[in-house]
Amino acid sequence: MSTLCVPSQVPSVAEDCEQLHKAFSGSIGWGTNEGLIISILGHRNAAQRKLIREVYAETYGEDLLKSLDKELTNDFERVVMLWTLDPPERDAYLANEATKRWTSSNQVLVEIACTRSPKELLHAREAYHVRFKRSLEEDVAYHTSGDFRKLLVALVSSYRYGGDDVNLILAKSEAKLLHEKICEKAYSCDDVIRILSTRSKAQINATLNQYKNEFGNDINKDLKADPKDEFLSILRSTVKCLVYPEKYFEKVVRLAINRRGTDEGALTRVVATRAEVDMKIVKDEYQRRNSVPLDRAIAKDTNGDYEKMLLALIGHEEA
Amino acid sequence: MSTLCVPSQVPSVAEDCEQLHKAFSGSIGWGTNEGLIISILGHRNAAQRKLIREVYAETYGEDLLKSLDKELTNDFERVVMLWTLDPPERDAYLANEATKRWTSSNQVLVEIACTRSPKELLHAREAYHVRFKRSLEEDVAYHTSGDFRKLLVALVSSYRYGGDDVNLILAKSEAKLLHEKICEKAYSCDDVIRILSTRSKAQINATLNQYKNEFGNDINKDLKADPKDEFLSILRSTVKCLVYPEKYFEKVVRLAINRRGTDEGALTRVVATRAEVDMKIVKDEYQRRNSVPLDRAIAKDTNGDYEKMLLALIGHEEA
Repeated sequence: MSTLCVPSQVPSVAEDCEQLHKAFSGSIGWGTNEGLIISILGHRNAAQRKLIREVYAETYGEDLLKSLDKELTNDFERVVMLWTLDPPERDAYLANEATKRWTSSNQVLVEIACTRSPKELLHAREAYHVRFKRSLEEDVAYHTSGDFRKLLVALVSSYRYGGDDVNLILAKSEAKLLHEKICEKAYSCDDVIRILSTRSKAQINATLNQYKNEFGNDINKDLKADPKDEFLSILRSTVKCLVYPEKYFEKVVRLAINRRGTDEGALTRVVATRAEVDMKIVKDEYQRRNSVPLDRAIAKDTNGDYEKMLLALIGHEEA
Repeated sequence: MSTLCVPSQVPSVAEDCEQLHKAFSGSIGWGTNEGLIISILGHRNAAQRKLIREVYAETYGEDLLKSLDKELTNDFERVVMLWTLDPPERDAYLANEATKRWTSSNQVLVEIACTRSPKELLHAREAYHVRFKRSLEEDVAYHTSGDFRKLLVALVSSYRYGGDDVNLILAKSEAKLLHEKICEKAYSCDDVIRILSTRSKAQINATLNQYKNEFGNDINKDLKADPKDEFLSILRSTVKCLVYPEKYFEKVVRLAINRRGTDEGALTRVVATRAEVDMKIVKDEYQRRNSVPLDRAIAKDTNGDYEKMLLALIGHEEA
């Protein structure tokens, strides 16, 4: 469900590197050639970008990310930089940024912990060690507190079972348990956090289906008792990220675009992290929910090279 | 610091398998030939045992562990079975057993979470998925409660940074924080658990050195305010497993041997899990603390094939 378009004939890595180097040095015209950068990096998959970064460093003695950092600016720089990073390293980078700028309304940690596969989250934690010489859970625990800490540390530390096996008896009993705790408004109690942070996604899905069958509401409706409560809001995101990640991402994109002044940070993050994963479904969800194609909404709200790079990643050119 | 003795000339895997098969079928004499089993399995390293298990299954159409289970009994069976398991699978097995039989005095989960390297713990969690179709933290969270749950889930879920980098300013501030919390008897507070479960072992070591320098006592002395408190006891084990694993294991072995009626479960576990790791240091610690060599103590307290296998694993024959 990727929206990335890789040409059927890809130039050699050496050629890509040479072109990128030319694009930076401006030897083709005046200044940096952003179009060339988009035409290369915007159309290579993760394995190809990784190889480009390696060969570029060998050939020119400088990390490609450093060259990008010198030549590009603002939103365009950020989307190219995030996109060029290897996915586990990118998750580590985003998670680290989120711990440092953490506020109770910041849901990036939940997003990384819950929308990635158990293996992907593990690889992000490994990349975190390498890059920051600390563990992800260590930084999350240090920068958060109270109920948020309780939930977030458990979510980022979990290594869930990834299989499809489901225990229906357990699903029934835990649906009942969740319902009891929600009725008591014990939202941050151990059992709620234990279920959401340790059960496999398949098991949680079964539990939440039982919840709906037995008690009539989507759990997220019952978690909306106080719409301003930020802990409830992060619990709803947790559920959404675990069970309907594409709907979660659609909403992040919708809010980023619809507010006064686009939230480029969120838009860039979603496009850079999902283009190679499930962006096609996110786009479909967006169109269904907003009656406007996502590429048209992005074209309306952004401009220049930033716009072009986003559109390349969501597969607009080829539409 | 392994005590395992592998002969300089190891027979081919096929030959080992054939001999084991003969040992089970009793074709050499009457019944099972336990001596032959010890002479093979008791003298092969983890990689060799893994290969033997694979080739045995291919050749005879039965898992070696199943053959062992049919032919052997009691303590001898358990030590051979635990030893033959691949280390991550063995840890998964022991951890699962510990969650199912969990009592507040059971410290096996702490032992597995804290004496293994971060990578080894991760491999145990992977093996747990494969064998039990659930995650380790899921079962730990389900079978425990209260403060014990808070500590144990955090310990088994952590993937600590494994490097030696230490932040001394942080060590000072967290030593002070630990001391404050211990003075307030807030033993299970978030900060104590956060520090012990997320910081790297090198960082915790630095923090506990600062603690001793600044406040005069080993932290474990201050954690002995009420010697009967089982949560304090598990906190002390956590510290010991993280910082002095060999001393921790020496004590487990000492208590297993010194009580009325040997605790074979504990003795078997320590020998089977540490023979290939740090058993040599554990033996030295044992002799220093008890003025008796460990092999003599084991020979006095155990007998038969069980005794022979333990002695083989702690390198007695070659002493």
